[in-house]
Amino acid sequence: MATQTEHGPRRERLAAALKQTRVNGLLITALPNIRYLSGFTGSNAALLVIGERALLFTDPRYQTQAPRESDCEVKIAKGPLAPEIHKWLKRLKVKSLGFEQNRISYEGYSELRDGMDGIRFKPIAGLVEALRLVKSPAEIATIRASVQLNSAALEQALRRFKSSMTEVDLAAEIEYRMRRLGADRPAFETIVASGERSALPHAHPTGHPIQGDQLLLVDMGAAVAGYASDMTRTYAVGRLDAKMRRMYRAVLESQLAAIDAVKPGVSCASVDRAAREVLRRYGLDKLFLHSTGHGLGLEIHERPRVGRKEGTKLEAGMAITIEPGVYAEGLGGIRIEDTVVVTERGSEVLTPTGKELAVL
Amino acid sequence: MATQTEHGPRRERLAAALKQTRVNGLLITALPNIRYLSGFTGSNAALLVIGERALLFTDPRYQTQAPRESDCEVKIAKGPLAPEIHKWLKRLKVKSLGFEQNRISYEGYSELRDGMDGIRFKPIAGLVEALRLVKSPAEIATIRASVQLNSAALEQALRRFKSSMTEVDLAAEIEYRMRRLGADRPAFETIVASGERSALPHAHPTGHPIQGDQLLLVDMGAAVAGYASDMTRTYAVGRLDAKMRRMYRAVLESQLAAIDAVKPGVSCASVDRAAREVLRRYGLDKLFLHSTGHGLGLEIHERPRVGRKEGTKLEAGMAITIEPGVYAEGLGGIRIEDTVVVTERGSEVLTPTGKELAVL
Repeated sequence: MATQTEHGPRRERLAAALKQTRVNGLLITALPNIRYLSGFTGSNAALLVIGERALLFTDPRYQTQAPRESDCEVKIAKGPLAPEIHKWLKRLKVKSLGFEQNRISYEGYSELRDGMDGIRFKPIAGLVEALRLVKSPAEIATIRASVQLNSAALEQALRRFKSSMTEVDLAAEIEYRMRRLGADRPAFETIVASGERSALPHAHPTGHPIQGDQLLLVDMGAAVAGYASDMTRTYAVGRLDAKMRRMYRAVLESQLAAIDAVKPGVSCASVDRAAREVLRRYGLDKLFLHSTGHGLGLEIHERPRVGRKEGTKLEAGMAITIEPGVYAEGLGGIRIEDTVVVTERGSEVLTPTGKELAVL
Repeated sequence: MATQTEHGPRRERLAAALKQTRVNGLLITALPNIRYLSGFTGSNAALLVIGERALLFTDPRYQTQAPRESDCEVKIAKGPLAPEIHKWLKRLKVKSLGFEQNRISYEGYSELRDGMDGIRFKPIAGLVEALRLVKSPAEIATIRASVQLNSAALEQALRRFKSSMTEVDLAAEIEYRMRRLGADRPAFETIVASGERSALPHAHPTGHPIQGDQLLLVDMGAAVAGYASDMTRTYAVGRLDAKMRRMYRAVLESQLAAIDAVKPGVSCASVDRAAREVLRRYGLDKLFLHSTGHGLGLEIHERPRVGRKEGTKLEAGMAITIEPGVYAEGLGGIRIEDTVVVTERGSEVLTPTGKELAVL
């Protein structure tokens, strides 16, 4: 778990990064970025970082919680946050202010700017996200705990699996096990999709019973102390025909090839290419409808995107998923996904759950 | 459950509302608004409504799901949605376009506008949300189902309550029961807060055991076929002292007074006032840290806000929460919340769960 003492040094790294821009300060409106820099976990906040000062704006619901969680100066706004922020922008004589252009609404931006004609507002993208790209050892430890909890939850839930169970029942069992094991919550809505529904990469679980001789796809993640894990496994419920077994083999080979490609200095695009090339050899690359993976941490989807056009070079300490899949409409889909950390020498697959085709 | 056939008439109402503005069309980027108008439930989409046409933009993950769920023209973008939207804005010769200013990021807006100099972009707030304010009978029926499921989940979970259970265990049990009963998911992170932690209006459940002679606050909601419910109950675990019992009585009286005030034509502010006045008589109004309630539907927080300054007049068919609370730091908090529908003659409390102080 990230300790309180990490927040100050993170803000120092931000202050250093801000010196490269031409603004006095930054207004942070993305909640995960606020949590990263201040420790605050509430649902309504803005963080103003100006030199060595960090002011955390929130509302009266959090007047007890905010000072407990955060070492920043807490400012409670009785109504909307903007007027309180304006007061401090004036008091601190701010001349130019960066704002998180992809994490503030057009309206939020308009309200921020309103009546502040003396200040130059500059859209800034991904500055805090860039600090979050490489995880600290404490963050990796938390992601590892999240991954292990997630796998334990799947194992416990599958022990209770019986065919004729509905997709919803299995999803409920999985999320219950996560929570009992100490997860904050599922990191995203658990996907349990059987039969041809597994061909929908983001299917909601239904009340349909999970029946024999078809595929069962489970995509699940836990949030533990704020940090996400992400895993997909595809099972055979009963027998699969030769075509599906071949598809499974192709996806597993593709996933292993992509993991093999992970090491510092390698671009995300070339990891994606490694996954795609295996599927191409099987003639299945056109059925691979998404990217090979994505970063994760305080959010379930973070930079880098492990995709076709992503030039970002991997660095030790990055945490990513590797999750190729093939989706045959009317037949079914197969996806295999692990959470992987880039190490000095290559990679470490954190996910302990087996990947050989298993029959439930 | 809202039926497929409701989406067309909703878009007709939107088209009529758009005629009052000075734009040809509207680009809808808020996912609940997209679901309301098109039926699509995916996580990445934009909906372009131009006259009688409705174009739904999404990505390849949803190429099978989107046409199943929606009667709109589905356009699949292989990368970001903006270039595909631009193509259609040109093809349809759009001259002026409204965009949802509070539901698009500053960056999303910049990308939308980029290279589209021939088009006048106009920020528009709350147009679709205004259509959603008054619920149809089918929507009310879905909210009712959501509320009933939520109460059934609490009842089932409390049957398994034992003191020494942790907050997390009870929250897990509640969410498991919701899912087993058929909820899509919890509408928000279930709050289970015992003892002085109940004074944090938005506490995350912890691993602390729920012990005797203190308060236990449970705030929970289900999403059922997309529609939210919301309920808070506060229990006595063992004995409460006279001061806390008096606080409970005050909050319950305040909640009943606010419900009594609900009827068509009454402003939200006066409902809020009714709640606050009771607490003032008890000398507890300064410990009431939030608004009396909020609308709910496809989102857990919708218009109207039932707050001090909200002039919106209630209308039959609106669905709101009534949830006054008092929070004494170091001692504990009490909140009582029901989901209420405004009817022609007054109101109907949908929540069937009892509100007299119960001892667990």
